[in-house]
Amino acid sequence: MTRLSRAAILAVGSELLTPTRMDTNSLFVTDQLNRLGIDVIFKCVVGDDREELARAVRTAFDLADLLVCSGGLGPTDDDLTREVVAEVLRRPLSEDAELASGIRARFASRGVLMPAINLRQAMVPAGARVLANKNGTAPGLWLEEEGRIVLLLPGPPRELKPMLGMVIESLRERAGGFSLVRRVVRITGRTESQAEQSLQPLYAEWGRRTVPVAATILAALGQIELHLSARSASHADADAALIQAIDDVRASLGLDVYSVDGSSLEQVVGNMLVERGLRIGAAESCTGGLVTSRLTDVPGSSRYVDRSIVAYSNAAKTELLDVPAEVIAAHGAVSEEVALAMASGIRSRARVDVGIGVTGIAGPSGGSSEKPVGTVVVAVQTPSLARARTFRFIGERELVKFQASQAALDMVRRLLLEL
Amino acid sequence: MTRLSRAAILAVGSELLTPTRMDTNSLFVTDQLNRLGIDVIFKCVVGDDREELARAVRTAFDLADLLVCSGGLGPTDDDLTREVVAEVLRRPLSEDAELASGIRARFASRGVLMPAINLRQAMVPAGARVLANKNGTAPGLWLEEEGRIVLLLPGPPRELKPMLGMVIESLRERAGGFSLVRRVVRITGRTESQAEQSLQPLYAEWGRRTVPVAATILAALGQIELHLSARSASHADADAALIQAIDDVRASLGLDVYSVDGSSLEQVVGNMLVERGLRIGAAESCTGGLVTSRLTDVPGSSRYVDRSIVAYSNAAKTELLDVPAEVIAAHGAVSEEVALAMASGIRSRARVDVGIGVTGIAGPSGGSSEKPVGTVVVAVQTPSLARARTFRFIGERELVKFQASQAALDMVRRLLLEL
Repeated sequence: MTRLSRAAILAVGSELLTPTRMDTNSLFVTDQLNRLGIDVIFKCVVGDDREELARAVRTAFDLADLLVCSGGLGPTDDDLTREVVAEVLRRPLSEDAELASGIRARFASRGVLMPAINLRQAMVPAGARVLANKNGTAPGLWLEEEGRIVLLLPGPPRELKPMLGMVIESLRERAGGFSLVRRVVRITGRTESQAEQSLQPLYAEWGRRTVPVAATILAALGQIELHLSARSASHADADAALIQAIDDVRASLGLDVYSVDGSSLEQVVGNMLVERGLRIGAAESCTGGLVTSRLTDVPGSSRYVDRSIVAYSNAAKTELLDVPAEVIAAHGAVSEEVALAMASGIRSRARVDVGIGVTGIAGPSGGSSEKPVGTVVVAVQTPSLARARTFRFIGERELVKFQASQAALDMVRRLLLEL
Repeated sequence: MTRLSRAAILAVGSELLTPTRMDTNSLFVTDQLNRLGIDVIFKCVVGDDREELARAVRTAFDLADLLVCSGGLGPTDDDLTREVVAEVLRRPLSEDAELASGIRARFASRGVLMPAINLRQAMVPAGARVLANKNGTAPGLWLEEEGRIVLLLPGPPRELKPMLGMVIESLRERAGGFSLVRRVVRITGRTESQAEQSLQPLYAEWGRRTVPVAATILAALGQIELHLSARSASHADADAALIQAIDDVRASLGLDVYSVDGSSLEQVVGNMLVERGLRIGAAESCTGGLVTSRLTDVPGSSRYVDRSIVAYSNAAKTELLDVPAEVIAAHGAVSEEVALAMASGIRSRARVDVGIGVTGIAGPSGGSSEKPVGTVVVAVQTPSLARARTFRFIGERELVKFQASQAALDMVRRLLLEL
């Protein structure tokens, strides 16, 4: 008997092909299957069209040993999943007497005449197991074909989820008894290709281990994520393989790894502040409050955030943060001197241990050849250390702001590690 | 020549097959193609696997006359889209000298040694048109095969969107000449079901018009969007139908409609401030800088934002915003009295026309039976008017913060309308 390990998910419904709707069932299904050690290797969305649906079913079933279809099981003309799957698997459909009488009874109990079309929901492909729908009218179906399985589930999440629950034990028996475990490593301070180059030798090594570890790198501006997964008969072995892989990444990338448990950068910084009993304040120009907003996204951040200043104008920097007007005049508002003065100013004004200063040109205007749009200076000051760094970020205004906030939080993290 | 009418969209990347990630590019691509009268008939997601990707490309290209692929164009080993598509279409790959020198130059300009792996991005299938990527390193590709088109776009939305824009006119020339026009109406100040109830009679009426207008309502906490679309051979007719529908919505919902052209609430408020020659400042407690960060997300916001204060602690409210300690003691930090004093404090301290005060309990802790988590008070003060309102938001910490910022900006909008 084939051990299920590779699943495809097919969502049926023309509405899922419009610009405002998405198939979200597949996320739930993926999570449930992953827990059984079954990988999802292919997902697709197809409209209510016989030929396209048949084509999609064939492709998906060729690639996978488990095919989960959602939607298209209703009574109307455009509900085609049952018929098309029966046709692809060459199983004749016949009316299931029990289902048919159940449907009749349901209408009768409401005193409504049953439109004949509803009996389509009682049609069952030969050899299929019928899955009762406690939350709706369309029954689900479980079909086997040469050791592989096709599962037809209704589209509405409140019907699909409990029905998948009904068959999860059957799926577990058929799965390899494997556990698929995932971990995300978050990295900052280098580009995707720089990270990739350092990690490449590891990928090869991980592939050769007793419990192989698979890796995918995901990069966005200001943040790189390395998604690791391991599959093993033993959950503990899979977990151990990931822990070792994470150690390898740390050994390779050092302090550029800031999170291995899903924590955000603001959570990591927040934990470090709490551990060290330190408080923090920010003097923000181009980030406009974003650094402090991120710091305060963390529950309990009132333990280390007391106040911050958004000083957009030069006058605000001088009046609220004691940045000398002469320093701004001599070096420009976007300079390491001003950023350091801002960090120092918020530290003493807010009477906190760690001060952040951020000043820059978020764009789209305001740039010069010497200081183009995207130039941002971040300074961090602690009682014993002070550091300033000039960045050149790319992207639009909001992205520059995000990268600047990321750089500021990361500089705090690195400085706290030295304390 | 085939008129393009049926598109398939293929998203490539193993991370898009995990329980926590979705392909969202396809929504944007669908919207753009729909505007050209091109229907999307098939969408799929496939991992970084050569055989599965090839199979998906074949299926999609068989079903559609336009195939749009996103992702998998980067420099690393698991970026396979270019190679697999070249193989399926039987086009040999060769290095494009111009692309190669561009990549070398980009690394040189940053003073970084180029990892050799980056040259994979200079490989081009025979006969392909190269699409320059102004926002990243991976170039896109346009291939034709027997009148049908394959478009390879990079995965990051900020690279994909402008690149699709570059080819949209070429696609329009090849499409059938129908126009599908869409508009989004943004609404605040009422719940989804309240909005739906007011709009339902309009839906029926729109369906009967010469150019029918279709509507979908999309609700998130703090914001409702009404998506309208109309299809016609004449772009002007479709446009006119939508303009009339928008007028109907305004007549029904009044001031609760804040945007009909895609503008965000912060843009709407920013425009109103500029028109009226007013400046604004915020005194933020539970929003932690989010209100000011949103205000400064708008290009040119330095015209009306000078400074803001994040006053998390009671001491900060008193020291930086002149909120009398007795008022805090008498009414609590989360009270209309304190919010009004904060708004007044920032107005005079920042010497601006409009002051915002926000204080509340973002959670998860800090709530009481009288003031549960989610309680937020927003006050807005102008030279002639002052208003305070207490909200009870639901959802987690970040959602409470967002809803509070939305309420604050919306109160500013409504107050400015009265000036």
